[in-house]
Amino acid sequence: MSDYSVFTSESVSEGHPDKLADQISDAVLDAILTEDPHARVACETMVKTGVAIVGGEITTSAWVDLEDLARDVIKDVGYTSSDVGFDADTCGIINIIGKQSVDIAQGVDRQKPEDQGAGDQGLMFGYASNETEVLMPAPITFAHRLMERQAEARKKGILPWLRPDAKSQVTCRYENGKVAGIDAVVLSTQHDPDVTQADLKEAVMELVVKKVLPPELLHKDTQYHINPTGKFVIGGPVGDCGLTGRKIIVDTYGGTARHGGGAFSGKDPSKVDRSAAYAGRYVAKNIVAAGLADKCEIQVSYAIGVAQPTSISLNTFGTGKISDDKIIQLVREQFDLRPYAITNMLDLLHPMYQATAAYGHFGREPQEVTIGGNTFTTFPWEKTDRAAALKDAAGI
Amino acid sequence: MSDYSVFTSESVSEGHPDKLADQISDAVLDAILTEDPHARVACETMVKTGVAIVGGEITTSAWVDLEDLARDVIKDVGYTSSDVGFDADTCGIINIIGKQSVDIAQGVDRQKPEDQGAGDQGLMFGYASNETEVLMPAPITFAHRLMERQAEARKKGILPWLRPDAKSQVTCRYENGKVAGIDAVVLSTQHDPDVTQADLKEAVMELVVKKVLPPELLHKDTQYHINPTGKFVIGGPVGDCGLTGRKIIVDTYGGTARHGGGAFSGKDPSKVDRSAAYAGRYVAKNIVAAGLADKCEIQVSYAIGVAQPTSISLNTFGTGKISDDKIIQLVREQFDLRPYAITNMLDLLHPMYQATAAYGHFGREPQEVTIGGNTFTTFPWEKTDRAAALKDAAGI
Ligand SMILES: C[S@@+](CC[C@H](N)C(=O)[O-])C[C@H]1O[C@@H](n2cnc3c(N)ncnc32)[C@H](O)[C@@H]1O
Ligand SMILES: C[S@@+](CC[C@H](N)C(=O)[O-])C[C@H]1O[C@@H](n2cnc3c(N)ncnc32)[C@H](O)[C@@H]1O
Repeated sequence: MSDYSVFTSESVSEGHPDKLADQISDAVLDAILTEDPHARVACETMVKTGVAIVGGEITTSAWVDLEDLARDVIKDVGYTSSDVGFDADTCGIINIIGKQSVDIAQGVDRQKPEDQGAGDQGLMFGYASNETEVLMPAPITFAHRLMERQAEARKKGILPWLRPDAKSQVTCRYENGKVAGIDAVVLSTQHDPDVTQADLKEAVMELVVKKVLPPELLHKDTQYHINPTGKFVIGGPVGDCGLTGRKIIVDTYGGTARHGGGAFSGKDPSKVDRSAAYAGRYVAKNIVAAGLADKCEIQVSYAIGVAQPTSISLNTFGTGKISDDKIIQLVREQFDLRPYAITNMLDLLHPMYQATAAYGHFGREPQEVTIGGNTFTTFPWEKTDRAAALKDAAGI
Repeated sequence: MSDYSVFTSESVSEGHPDKLADQISDAVLDAILTEDPHARVACETMVKTGVAIVGGEITTSAWVDLEDLARDVIKDVGYTSSDVGFDADTCGIINIIGKQSVDIAQGVDRQKPEDQGAGDQGLMFGYASNETEVLMPAPITFAHRLMERQAEARKKGILPWLRPDAKSQVTCRYENGKVAGIDAVVLSTQHDPDVTQADLKEAVMELVVKKVLPPELLHKDTQYHINPTGKFVIGGPVGDCGLTGRKIIVDTYGGTARHGGGAFSGKDPSKVDRSAAYAGRYVAKNIVAAGLADKCEIQVSYAIGVAQPTSISLNTFGTGKISDDKIIQLVREQFDLRPYAITNMLDLLHPMYQATAAYGHFGREPQEVTIGGNTFTTFPWEKTDRAAALKDAAGI
């Protein structure tokens, strides 16, 4: 047995300062991709009391109104007054964006697009597990749902005293690779000053926790920590400086899978940190969907300026129906993991990124959308359209 | 078998912009801890062309000269002129630091210090493996050594045309849990404009790569990518915006172990993201040093404001000499993992953090140092002083 019997994952709300930074970075990316699909974008944001600082490297022919974009994100998230801690209309927006280094650009660009080099070195993982319907680990899935429900209860006025900043954490107990119970739940949410802690605890328990977590998994010894500090009126960037790329485990598999360290938000698909991690999810999910394994983790790595991965490796944790070596061979045959090929395979050069920047990049529902006459699929890496071919090729 | 047969890890030099940010954050922490061991520090830095922005939340009675501290770090790393891309003496240093939220402080502080609540929720992992003498995974160990050697060759004038910014990546092939070969090496280093690519490649190969990597692991099919973009004159914050906490996999196990997502640099030990990850390494390393397992990964999790972990779990990947459940029981008996107890167990309230902020927090040599009359041990989580007791208690 090489499994954890108890495992904990966390999530944060769209009002968490790090996620606010991620969403601003991805809003900038989306706005640029709408006009210029070939832009090079690496947008990093820092939010702190009264200010959002937007930096990074961007080379594009598009003109975007950075200030408006940032204010819109902050407003949509719900930071619209100094009372709440941050005011979209009056906060400072500081722009320290530069251009992509010409040394990097000449190393990445190629005459033949399919030879385009990776935008950076690095290692990336993709993962899938059949323990939930969305082929994601259960603890992170539950943690995200708690946060989505917090936002819904706030935005629909179900619990009108909720404020944007929040965090959740779920500890699952496993038996035979499936979740058998939830042993602990942590939920902290920012709130108006006038709600009592007793009222808050009861309402969050009834209208958030119990609305989301399957009752059959909650048991008499489940620990609940609802707003355990006892007070969470101050929130957002005043209480905690936020930075792009600081929730990379929340963004991915909640710690169940390994991580290469690269962040996603603000990066266009020439950055393999993002595109190869998406491709990794796509490969792993299709392998699990094909029934080749119950769990699958894939690692890929790149050298900057080089198209072919420096390594591809894979682990099914003893759950493979065929050997890991055979599965790797199928992956090599059926998936082209060069950066340009990934971008084409998943059709990534569209404005689809802001939606990824809260509640997880994986386990989400792909949707067809049309923007400015272009039709594309959001969360395309979640499609299982390669499962049948993999199954055939594996002969099972 | 649930192991990777090929695994890749990366590292970056002290001149990498994210690491520059980490080092500034930890220099601020160290300066404060020198005067005020009970300060609350969460220091986040952003570096971009010509500017370092230092933010976060700090509550302390100490007075530190933030500007001087930041300039000293930048100077020591080697960014001392606009030619190199960043000039310690003339760059802007912007301070947007606030205080710790009083709502958080009242939730974390307790009458009895041992009841001190965790400074945040979160999950953390500790790991150790007997595949190297320092009980660290081999790929990250090699990747760090390449970067340490790059800095040495630069600072000692062995390769005087080297500049501060660099990255490395090593792909190892495993056989029976031990490294059997190195299949790929990536090394990109910033350089003066006047060195030719051919000279650079040869010199880096001979005086960095071959000085560090064991010759018996290099083979005829080892791929080398030395400065694969062909040019890396522009470097540091001009080429890439740097943020604190953006190299969390480089800081830890290079991806071999799981990660909870929390960053280290700039955080005082009341933040479990840092202290519990250090404790996790200490526990895992002592378990492996005691011979209870060849590999050990431990997960702990916390609720903000609560002292006792919400979960402790463990995985020896089938290498345990006794069952994982028994090992967890030993851990619970022999290690107190409440935040205050961790701080005492490892004696963490000393200025020891800047040194952790480059070349990895783990696998480093603990050293006794005396600063201002206080004697303490750096990298205390690397001590194996609990191995004998664990061995005894396990009866092996
Ligand atoms: C606890 S803060 C991190 C520590 C902080 N940098 C400090 O210096 O204390 C992390 C997150 O916890 C949440 N948080 C903020 N205030 C809180 C409170 N009073 N109670 C519970 N959670 C809180 C917010 O989502 C915030 O982004
Ligand atoms: C490639 S940059 C990341 C991408 C960047 N933000 C952009 O927009 O292109 C990441 C790191 O690669 C290294 N780097 C910078 N310029 C490089 C070059 N010309 N060749 C190779 N590596 C480089 C630096 O260590 C830098 O911090």
